[in-house]
Amino acid sequence: MSKRIKIKALLESTETNIEVTVKGWVRTFRNNQFIALNDGSTNNNIQIVVDFQNTDEALLKRITTGAALSVTGTLVESLGKGQKFDIKATAIEVLGDSDPEKYPLQPKKHSLEFLREIAHLRFRTNTFGAIFRVRNSLSFAVHKFFQERGFVYLHTPVITQSDAEGAGEAFRVTNLDLNNLPRTEDGEIDYKQDFFGKSTNLTVSGQLEGELGAMALSDIYTFGPTFRAENSNTTRHLAEFWMIEPEMAFYDLADNMDLAEALLKYVISYALENNNEDLEFLDQRLADEDKQKPQNERAEMSLLDKLQFCLDNDFQRLTYTEAIEILKESTPNKKKKFTYLVEGWGTDLQSEHERYLVEKHFKKPVILTDYPKEIKSFYMRQNDDGKTVAAMDILFPGIGEIVGGSQREERLDKLEQRMDEIGIPKEELWWYLDTRRFGACPHAGFGLGFERLVLFVTGMGNIRDVIPFPRFPKNAEF
Amino acid sequence: MSKRIKIKALLESTETNIEVTVKGWVRTFRNNQFIALNDGSTNNNIQIVVDFQNTDEALLKRITTGAALSVTGTLVESLGKGQKFDIKATAIEVLGDSDPEKYPLQPKKHSLEFLREIAHLRFRTNTFGAIFRVRNSLSFAVHKFFQERGFVYLHTPVITQSDAEGAGEAFRVTNLDLNNLPRTEDGEIDYKQDFFGKSTNLTVSGQLEGELGAMALSDIYTFGPTFRAENSNTTRHLAEFWMIEPEMAFYDLADNMDLAEALLKYVISYALENNNEDLEFLDQRLADEDKQKPQNERAEMSLLDKLQFCLDNDFQRLTYTEAIEILKESTPNKKKKFTYLVEGWGTDLQSEHERYLVEKHFKKPVILTDYPKEIKSFYMRQNDDGKTVAAMDILFPGIGEIVGGSQREERLDKLEQRMDEIGIPKEELWWYLDTRRFGACPHAGFGLGFERLVLFVTGMGNIRDVIPFPRFPKNAEF
Repeated sequence: MSKRIKIKALLESTETNIEVTVKGWVRTFRNNQFIALNDGSTNNNIQIVVDFQNTDEALLKRITTGAALSVTGTLVESLGKGQKFDIKATAIEVLGDSDPEKYPLQPKKHSLEFLREIAHLRFRTNTFGAIFRVRNSLSFAVHKFFQERGFVYLHTPVITQSDAEGAGEAFRVTNLDLNNLPRTEDGEIDYKQDFFGKSTNLTVSGQLEGELGAMALSDIYTFGPTFRAENSNTTRHLAEFWMIEPEMAFYDLADNMDLAEALLKYVISYALENNNEDLEFLDQRLADEDKQKPQNERAEMSLLDKLQFCLDNDFQRLTYTEAIEILKESTPNKKKKFTYLVEGWGTDLQSEHERYLVEKHFKKPVILTDYPKEIKSFYMRQNDDGKTVAAMDILFPGIGEIVGGSQREERLDKLEQRMDEIGIPKEELWWYLDTRRFGACPHAGFGLGFERLVLFVTGMGNIRDVIPFPRFPKNAEF
Repeated sequence: MSKRIKIKALLESTETNIEVTVKGWVRTFRNNQFIALNDGSTNNNIQIVVDFQNTDEALLKRITTGAALSVTGTLVESLGKGQKFDIKATAIEVLGDSDPEKYPLQPKKHSLEFLREIAHLRFRTNTFGAIFRVRNSLSFAVHKFFQERGFVYLHTPVITQSDAEGAGEAFRVTNLDLNNLPRTEDGEIDYKQDFFGKSTNLTVSGQLEGELGAMALSDIYTFGPTFRAENSNTTRHLAEFWMIEPEMAFYDLADNMDLAEALLKYVISYALENNNEDLEFLDQRLADEDKQKPQNERAEMSLLDKLQFCLDNDFQRLTYTEAIEILKESTPNKKKKFTYLVEGWGTDLQSEHERYLVEKHFKKPVILTDYPKEIKSFYMRQNDDGKTVAAMDILFPGIGEIVGGSQREERLDKLEQRMDEIGIPKEELWWYLDTRRFGACPHAGFGLGFERLVLFVTGMGNIRDVIPFPRFPKNAEF
């Protein structure tokens, strides 16, 4: 194919009066003369100047929003405002038409709800182009961060046998014929005849398998899809989402917190450096949206300021117990403004409490540690007080929990005791327990919900808008 | 925690007579004096010299294969052969014991079959340490390659609605209660009551969704898990595997081949640069294995030579039609040595034919193009001859097909006609067809089976040994 230059590279050109070929899609066509062409390499369009007097009328009619074009012409300094270069077209070819009567994406503002219904086309808008370029950068930054530190990227399995951790929230995977289920003599469904010879599910976390890797390779991380069959129709939950789960041998809780904070700062900083234009666009988008709101609901900081603020400040670290004290004494608790009043030690924190701590009290990201063992998972290391575990949650403004982690219980007796207390079948996790039998060591890890990170960095309000094709109750379209 | 240095960094030290702390697992302990300690950062061990006369007997007994240790001591030049440095231990702490009576991994050669049964521990062997460090590097190299070229990493969905492409080989995903399936009035299973309100499967490819991204962002790639409920108990098939699927707008078949060849060379070269020690170990392993074979079954090239050879030579490109002519005239065909004799144009190539072309005839990687449309997928672009499609398969020595791709059919009428011929329901793929309705353009893409790549680069013989926890018929352990 004739070599084309991408618009991002073109706009960084230091030469003019050269012949170039660009290919992309028409965003707008004004006065039969000015085409705004976009190829997805950047949010910026290149303006094509059409010599309409010498261009075939039939061709001009085909230059409509959404049409795919190949344009050859001369790169010149722009006379217009808002752009550095134009292309004076010498040849325009319509590669693919776009019937303006039928094309759903017209050059006007569409609601996010509407765009979700046409998720196959929403990549073609400024907002979603920016979101998915930022998402791409954050993904790569995650890999880069861990690779620079000698971590091994481990692909933990998606299909798993047990639902030890899932608490009934795992999707079943099967290739049994549901219209003709095989039965055992007792009348039970005979999973021995299923593909894997057992009942299988989609993973709810790669952590347990990740630990197996860490017990040999020292530092590993996963980055893969994770599933919850939770019937939550919220702006913060998905049935299918991507998680990053590092596990580190010889790390304690403090090391764990240091790593998580460094990771978050690294990836935000990477996006600010590599997606400046996208983030400026999203910053402006949020500012425009904010203007529609009453004064008291508007954000205190712009998106870019909020990201920079995260980089410039240490995250506030405190224990759950200290947090409860702060919450008990807080104005909204005393004035009974919280829906769930904070009365004593032991209950889980609600979103309203987390938001109070992060957004009102400390006004920065917070790491809460040492939660009551009853509200945390069986694998978290028991503290000497007999009441708490060496857990840590990182809470972000507007997002709530973005990271959840802990030092892991490496002592076989303590781990088995806790599994017995909660009723987790030890025989299903024989392989997990083996790592406590042979060469156990202190270790720690955490999980970072990738979409929540993208939500935070893009400033979007609904998690369904930061993953290409969201899966949620009653929806698996595309 | 007291800061430790990883063994990889330690072995690159330029200083001696400094105090260091290392943490890792005992590989061997000789003469109550020499500990070979490994922490997974490299295949190399650090030798710890124990002052056994001044060390507590009880402690010495706990230094067994598999035990986790923290060792502090002085880094000194080694007097022994095969290593540059020793650590003269001043303090040894056993972090986790490993009962030699029970630990399955003794310091002797274990079979790969046995290690597959203890996949939770096999990371602790030299072979699997090397494999998973190489796998890690190949993963990162894939990302690096695409990021350097402005591609956007797109997370396409794992749970999908249709099995348009899967031809019945997709796993079902459900959270219906199988013991109490809801029924419609007609007695059919009522998938409206399933989580997603429809019948859903695990993806067999992210390509179709990937194309949606490419039609806006120009160049995208996926890298995610993919599933086939194929009852294949072979050394080359897995039920769960990872695929890399780039899709590029404005690419034709030649561009597509160029990109795929560049990608393969880039990632192999990256592994050679970054995993030299691991690959040398695997090269030696393969050489040792080869010595057990009769002369005529031994490899013509060592692993490292084979990898270098791939970098130094252009892949051979020819059409399917040309390949058929070569095969028809080949000695094994004339002497009836092929199980499936090549008689005419139109049939699919068998593994034996691919191997002949790659390993005997051309003796290098081969790209076959322009296959008969009947043996390829509906979305491949139809050539003008009315018989073939613009497909390409890359065949690698010892592996067979490692890449399969094509230029995509961008012409709506041709695409719909082919779907009708094959019986693919157009209404299920309305969103895919929309990209041909609005701003279609020539585009292309391919799929690279990641485990097959790892198989090739590590020289291993069974695909179950290059993914941490393999899934295959009757097995989803760990």
